[in-house]
Amino acid sequence: MSAITALETFDIRFPTSQHLDGSDAMNPDPDYSAAYLIIRTDAGDGHEGHGFVFTIGRGNEIAVAAIHAVRHHLVGWNVEELLGDMGATWKRLVHDSQLRWLGPEKGVMHMAIGAVVNALWDLKAKRAGLPLWELLSRMSPEELVSLVDFRYLTDALTPDQALEILRRAETGRAERRAQLLAEGYPAYTTTPGWLGYSDEKLVRLAREAVAEGYTQIKLKVGASLEDDVRRLRLARETVGPDVRIAVDANQRWDVEEAVEWMSWLAPFDIAWIEEPTSPDDILGHAEIARKLAPLPVATGEHVHNRVMFKQFVQAGALEVLQLDATRVAGVNENLAILLLAAKFGVRVCPHAGGVGLCEAVQHLSMFDFVAVSGTKEGRMIEYVDHLHEHFAAPVDVHSGAYWPPFAPGAGTEMVAGTLAGYVFPAGQIWSAPSAFSQQ
Amino acid sequence: MSAITALETFDIRFPTSQHLDGSDAMNPDPDYSAAYLIIRTDAGDGHEGHGFVFTIGRGNEIAVAAIHAVRHHLVGWNVEELLGDMGATWKRLVHDSQLRWLGPEKGVMHMAIGAVVNALWDLKAKRAGLPLWELLSRMSPEELVSLVDFRYLTDALTPDQALEILRRAETGRAERRAQLLAEGYPAYTTTPGWLGYSDEKLVRLAREAVAEGYTQIKLKVGASLEDDVRRLRLARETVGPDVRIAVDANQRWDVEEAVEWMSWLAPFDIAWIEEPTSPDDILGHAEIARKLAPLPVATGEHVHNRVMFKQFVQAGALEVLQLDATRVAGVNENLAILLLAAKFGVRVCPHAGGVGLCEAVQHLSMFDFVAVSGTKEGRMIEYVDHLHEHFAAPVDVHSGAYWPPFAPGAGTEMVAGTLAGYVFPAGQIWSAPSAFSQQ
Repeated sequence: MSAITALETFDIRFPTSQHLDGSDAMNPDPDYSAAYLIIRTDAGDGHEGHGFVFTIGRGNEIAVAAIHAVRHHLVGWNVEELLGDMGATWKRLVHDSQLRWLGPEKGVMHMAIGAVVNALWDLKAKRAGLPLWELLSRMSPEELVSLVDFRYLTDALTPDQALEILRRAETGRAERRAQLLAEGYPAYTTTPGWLGYSDEKLVRLAREAVAEGYTQIKLKVGASLEDDVRRLRLARETVGPDVRIAVDANQRWDVEEAVEWMSWLAPFDIAWIEEPTSPDDILGHAEIARKLAPLPVATGEHVHNRVMFKQFVQAGALEVLQLDATRVAGVNENLAILLLAAKFGVRVCPHAGGVGLCEAVQHLSMFDFVAVSGTKEGRMIEYVDHLHEHFAAPVDVHSGAYWPPFAPGAGTEMVAGTLAGYVFPAGQIWSAPSAFSQQ
Repeated sequence: MSAITALETFDIRFPTSQHLDGSDAMNPDPDYSAAYLIIRTDAGDGHEGHGFVFTIGRGNEIAVAAIHAVRHHLVGWNVEELLGDMGATWKRLVHDSQLRWLGPEKGVMHMAIGAVVNALWDLKAKRAGLPLWELLSRMSPEELVSLVDFRYLTDALTPDQALEILRRAETGRAERRAQLLAEGYPAYTTTPGWLGYSDEKLVRLAREAVAEGYTQIKLKVGASLEDDVRRLRLARETVGPDVRIAVDANQRWDVEEAVEWMSWLAPFDIAWIEEPTSPDDILGHAEIARKLAPLPVATGEHVHNRVMFKQFVQAGALEVLQLDATRVAGVNENLAILLLAAKFGVRVCPHAGGVGLCEAVQHLSMFDFVAVSGTKEGRMIEYVDHLHEHFAAPVDVHSGAYWPPFAPGAGTEMVAGTLAGYVFPAGQIWSAPSAFSQQ
């Protein structure tokens, strides 16, 4: 019997805007940040749970305040009880009636709960001595179904239907696990495509991406049609006809504008158009998808919960579902989303990049392959090659693939030096920012 | 030329959970609260702008932090410039690229921006010496259109179409203004219907409501079917056949459950079913509306922005649109929503109650009647009779109607004693809570 003794929070920020890493049509100068937490216990086993919300700078302190606001659901409570029934724990956090008003189930409050849920999973996986993907892949279909809150889902997915999907995938788990260890999980890279990069840098990085074994790259679009056409022509010339090129408008357009703009880009053989319009606009995405077919529409990094994803798949509004590790309420809700994707037959290609999103989300895709959808067909995880050095178990990405992590936990733990050095505004990086630009 | 000198924030909470005022199927014990702000200037005219986010207790401090996070867009800036182009000011606040990540345009961050926008409108109206409804009703169609951000709306409503609606309503503004002053704006009351009240209290309050001139009351439902049927029978017996009874499930059901449950309540002649399921579930509401027709479906108090409302009206998912003064990003976004309602021909019956929602939202309905939809047909504003004494200009509701306020401003200013006494946790009410229960 042990108890949670503390929920510690940290406002961690990286001054990425100095290099225009991460720049796109809607986010010209992000400072990649993490509203971070550590859950400590009195178990004496040395294990802590780490989790975070990814943000892009200003307002990170609001997410920190939101994480702090759920501490009464954790501190002083029995660890084994909380971790032993993660379905019940999730509901207790998400359905706190007063905090729920701040969403419900969306925005800062929901993301903060996601960080806490993920920190609990990190702790649970560490106590089990397993990486999260492996821990989840070993759970029975019944245990997995018990993690999901089916409220608001049953018109599209019932517990029985979820059970059926998971039971079907029970066959072959061992083979797929072996396959994963041997082949890795496909990755694509966004590194060449940021809007703030020059044409020369785009070409150089695209060439490097192909050399490194990537079969898909992604370019940001939506600020200037003329620039987009020039950059796509350059990219297509550089990578040749066999490498896929996806484009990402980061919510820049209205519905008709998206259709019109994409008619100019479609000739460059586009793998998908990502976030063509508001992430809230299910009907708008459905209309764009109909008009651009067969060009696939992708979205998800800003889709705020399972109820929205339910409608996206019901309406045929996306073909590529880009779940995010820290936008929805953590592992449990992402399991619901993986099940919806499996039921409706859409491909899951998670959003990553940012701070630690690659480290976190790989576990979900690998688990999905082993125990949910049972396929990697048309699926891949986004990859961006920065800020990994700040994590205790950085991703292993090479030869165009993510390689399964072995370290126990959910991948969400930063190294201690980063927590000390990048804390805002007291950390060394913020009191002496020139240290960063010389890196 | 004057400048904004300060944006002051206050965490104001009322211990309403002690009396179960405001109790419903999802919110058993709310402590009605306000994340409150005051904008001060160096104009020397004595005017301040007041605004707030309504919350129900825990987490109010997160909304306060979010209000604080936009101060760099106000403090030090020229007041006349900000107030002179409220369309541009709105966009600057909502499209702050880093803060936008925390929504986008939803949850805590969006509500906080709404509070700030409303405080600016409060200041603008006070400087003009007019109540907000009158200030808005005197603006030209072109000025009104300039307040709206049409991004993500143009597939349903273009600036030209909005202009056409407003120009059509320009005819007869003076007559409708006179009519409003003579007749007031219809109100309905939720006072009798809270779930935590006994049958005796329900009957007594329902009888009083009829005696006071209300032609519609509303009952909370969704916790127990047996209780709901008994309470509805009692209410119907009490008010007779000519008073309308609406019911409100506060998001309690899944889609099929809503249809099934309402089949038991429909025989009591229901005015509308409000929030039958998740406020995010546009397609679910549409399905419920189809199956329950002609029983109207109402929703809106938790619908987080204009993009969601756009889809609700596009999908025929609601017949009664319940906008809220502090859920979306303030007056500007509510103008967009009023225009969508006018375009699609749905009735607007605003959500009120809470803390100061009645005081704030009446301005929008009255303006809508004078200058947007031009009709009160089937429209009314919710009324709950508590906490009004905390406002500088409490609503004037009698004879079943809201009577137009004359005090300059947006209705969002609390009295100074309340700001001092109810601030959390230092205020007297929280250090000596027994003072409240003796009131």
